[in-house]
Amino acid sequence: MARGFFITLEGGEGAGKTTLARALSEALAARGLEIVLTREPGGTPNAEALRTLLVEGDPGRWSPVGETLLMYAAREDHVRRLIAPALERGAWVICDRFSDSTRAYQGVAGGVDAAHIEAIEAAALGSFRPDLTLIADLAPEAGLKRAATRGEAVTRFEAKDGEFHSRLRRAFLAIAAAEPVRCAVLDASLAPDALAAAALAIIDDRLGRP
Amino acid sequence: MARGFFITLEGGEGAGKTTLARALSEALAARGLEIVLTREPGGTPNAEALRTLLVEGDPGRWSPVGETLLMYAAREDHVRRLIAPALERGAWVICDRFSDSTRAYQGVAGGVDAAHIEAIEAAALGSFRPDLTLIADLAPEAGLKRAATRGEAVTRFEAKDGEFHSRLRRAFLAIAAAEPVRCAVLDASLAPDALAAAALAIIDDRLGRP
Repeated sequence: MARGFFITLEGGEGAGKTTLARALSEALAARGLEIVLTREPGGTPNAEALRTLLVEGDPGRWSPVGETLLMYAAREDHVRRLIAPALERGAWVICDRFSDSTRAYQGVAGGVDAAHIEAIEAAALGSFRPDLTLIADLAPEAGLKRAATRGEAVTRFEAKDGEFHSRLRRAFLAIAAAEPVRCAVLDASLAPDALAAAALAIIDDRLGRP
Repeated sequence: MARGFFITLEGGEGAGKTTLARALSEALAARGLEIVLTREPGGTPNAEALRTLLVEGDPGRWSPVGETLLMYAAREDHVRRLIAPALERGAWVICDRFSDSTRAYQGVAGGVDAAHIEAIEAAALGSFRPDLTLIADLAPEAGLKRAATRGEAVTRFEAKDGEFHSRLRRAFLAIAAAEPVRCAVLDASLAPDALAAAALAIIDDRLGRP
């Protein structure tokens, strides 16, 4: 059995990543592939315990570098116990947020030095990387409006101001520009069906229709 | 007010670090110093929450690199919220275990690359270091016997085999040899009073009697 592919979905708030992840899972599963759909922070019991520590309590509970260390502790567990074994047995793994979210949120927006994040990633994951990262790009005003409309509780990150979200967007676009072989940018202002179709077209183009 | 000194106590199981920490706190407080006595992992609410995650559950719950990331997330919080502010206001801080325990347990005994630990430390703490590290050195057989005699529950680390504890001892001695200005080795086979007297003599010699 050939190794499966690891696809990550990234982007700001309200860009439709979670809906897109479900749509891609269904479309790829319909082709007879085993699909593992997961998310970060979380995905394994240890990582979910860290997610709880990260999202509960005061917004300033952890420093940006503290959040980075906890994110990578969670990620190391997630990769070692769930993602890597699934890829090994031939499954495709779709993950809602991964390392690029740490680069954007804790790094660019939070001020953690990029070299420190890379060093922590090397310690935690070695050379493990996604095969393809889809960046759902949306103007912050549209994303926040969408997040508000769907009636979700305002999360810690959603409570930040507009400039924060603009920096996030620029951070994700800079990652895509710096790693064009791994990353592709999607226009997340598309309707959900059209966004999923666009994403599938890129998956087939980049990874080869199985 | 002059900045206080940061003294860490390190060593294997049953070397008497905790008793020594209390004795040193009392002796230094009797000189009119403000003393903050703390321990790792832990020392602040966030760090104690991580301690709980580290010590509860299956011994193989976290990988050595996962433990390292959690230790430094806890340590960053501990330094930022408790240790650094105390030193700043002139207090002396005595900490039962600190970074050298991560180097010995997760690094040498657990197999995490030393360069990765240094990179994680740089991200978490910058150039922050103890002013003095006292390494309580004891043959592993004597330490484990003492730990057993005091009737404590066998902790995750104490449950490891003899070779593990010998590697730990060598790791602490290697740290002391590599950083002789920061570190001093104590003969932890001494009776508690004599050990405390020896430690105080070194503190006065290295840091200057206040």
